Amino acid sequence: MMFAQKYQYYLELIEEYLKKLPFEDNLICQSMNYSLVGGGKRVRPVLALACAEIVGGLPGNFVREASAIELIHTYSLIHDDLPAMDDDDFRRGKPSNHKAFGEAAAILAGDALLTYAFELLSQPLSVPPEKQIRVIRETAAAAGWRGMVGGQVLDTIGNGQKSELSEIENIHRMKTGALLKASARLGAILGGGTEEEIDIVSEYASYIGLAFQIKDDILDIVGESQVLGKPVGSDEKLNKPTYPTILGLEGAYGYLAKTISSAKNTIGFFGQKADFLSALADYIAERDN
Amino acid sequence: MMFAQKYQYYLELIEEYLKKLPFEDNLICQSMNYSLVGGGKRVRPVLALACAEIVGGLPGNFVREASAIELIHTYSLIHDDLPAMDDDDFRRGKPSNHKAFGEAAAILAGDALLTYAFELLSQPLSVPPEKQIRVIRETAAAAGWRGMVGGQVLDTIGNGQKSELSEIENIHRMKTGALLKASARLGAILGGGTEEEIDIVSEYASYIGLAFQIKDDILDIVGESQVLGKPVGSDEKLNKPTYPTILGLEGAYGYLAKTISSAKNTIGFFGQKADFLSALADYIAERDN
Repeated sequence: MMFAQKYQYYLELIEEYLKKLPFEDNLICQSMNYSLVGGGKRVRPVLALACAEIVGGLPGNFVREASAIELIHTYSLIHDDLPAMDDDDFRRGKPSNHKAFGEAAAILAGDALLTYAFELLSQPLSVPPEKQIRVIRETAAAAGWRGMVGGQVLDTIGNGQKSELSEIENIHRMKTGALLKASARLGAILGGGTEEEIDIVSEYASYIGLAFQIKDDILDIVGESQVLGKPVGSDEKLNKPTYPTILGLEGAYGYLAKTISSAKNTIGFFGQKADFLSALADYIAERDN
Repeated sequence: MMFAQKYQYYLELIEEYLKKLPFEDNLICQSMNYSLVGGGKRVRPVLALACAEIVGGLPGNFVREASAIELIHTYSLIHDDLPAMDDDDFRRGKPSNHKAFGEAAAILAGDALLTYAFELLSQPLSVPPEKQIRVIRETAAAAGWRGMVGGQVLDTIGNGQKSELSEIENIHRMKTGALLKASARLGAILGGGTEEEIDIVSEYASYIGLAFQIKDDILDIVGESQVLGKPVGSDEKLNKPTYPTILGLEGAYGYLAKTISSAKNTIGFFGQKADFLSALADYIAERDN
């Protein structure tokens, strides 16, 4: 199957599952559902399903668990957008959650999505229960104060000027890398991977996360200059150090290529079965939004 | 052992555990720890430990799991106090979390406490893994949009005037009752209780939750009148319907007594082993703060 078809296959499994969540017709469910449906590339759950498949699992068996990761990602976006945080009025082309439902509902919808993710992760599942508990434990750790939330604190509140590449990479590793890695590990653990296989998809996901961020930073300059006709991006306006500001645009492109190459070498362990995840690495480098 | 001694025994297990959590010396951990330590009656984890013991479990084996419930309770208080929610500047006699650390840190500390609770609930544990997964699932369900968060939405954002007793009870059942019930069930499930025993502590906890709320409403009138020398409580100022405003003060006391009696009858199933939980019911009715 070609990359685009395969991506679509995974994506539809996830979108169908998310659409069928048993939400009720009340404010909290409307607010949760508003941010959950109709948006995003669903990279995390797609990665989870692909990693389940690469180790020999049936991706269709773990759609609920992969989708739980998307709930965690969505909650983090809702809370990130709040006035006290990044104060963003728009997300994925529509008003952000607190603009549509008010701040109180947005805070609570985020809380509820995070909580619901763990409810979904702990439903009866046809894998050894020890593996299921491990997935819950690793996902919680990746999403918490040592991972995603910790990275968000450093990024939003921070400690003054961050100018070293190592500091920036540490923030990204926590803020976005940890949950991407957890997605890959969730798939590989539930799919029945060996410890070596779990470690390999984990390392692959780390490179993917890094590449994702480098490309984001590049797009913030190049993308906006194409659209707006000026070379100044939002990161630069915020005085946030980025890969292009530290390495230069050429240097950032070079670092991106090197990272993608590392990702593909790593996942190459799986031979032909690595085709989709190898193409996913290229897709992340080549995307224009 | 007398009630007060036993309560102290459970309490110390929990306080010692909470003090030894491996927090680091950074902003997110300081903010989490600030709200977690030094305060509150720890009713939920005490209830969990007592319910583990009443079904024949060793309470010392489940301190981490009981404490996880306290993390969830604490996160809910931090988010409830936010300006967009109840906008409370003080909590347990000290500045609320967002007053001490700022709104962004408070939102994220709440997120991190909730997430950390599930990390603690999924640590290796010496009970059958199916029971551990069940506890995670039930706790998540109780804390989420069908339970605590859902109740908070109804209470904070609501649907206009709530005047029916049944509406108010529904909000309380979700907002505070669900997590109390989950605490009792967590203890009974992990402690090795039968389904019948789990159901009985669950029903007991529902009565306790109701009694707790009735007493809170009574204290809001009686307690404040003693301290401030006026009969107007904060609920009345907020135009919130309460048990005394609906049933009258006499009626509310009567309802409280009936509820405590139901709690004690229910837990009486366990015979002499019920002494502590029976006394806990009286304690909730008689407390003056």
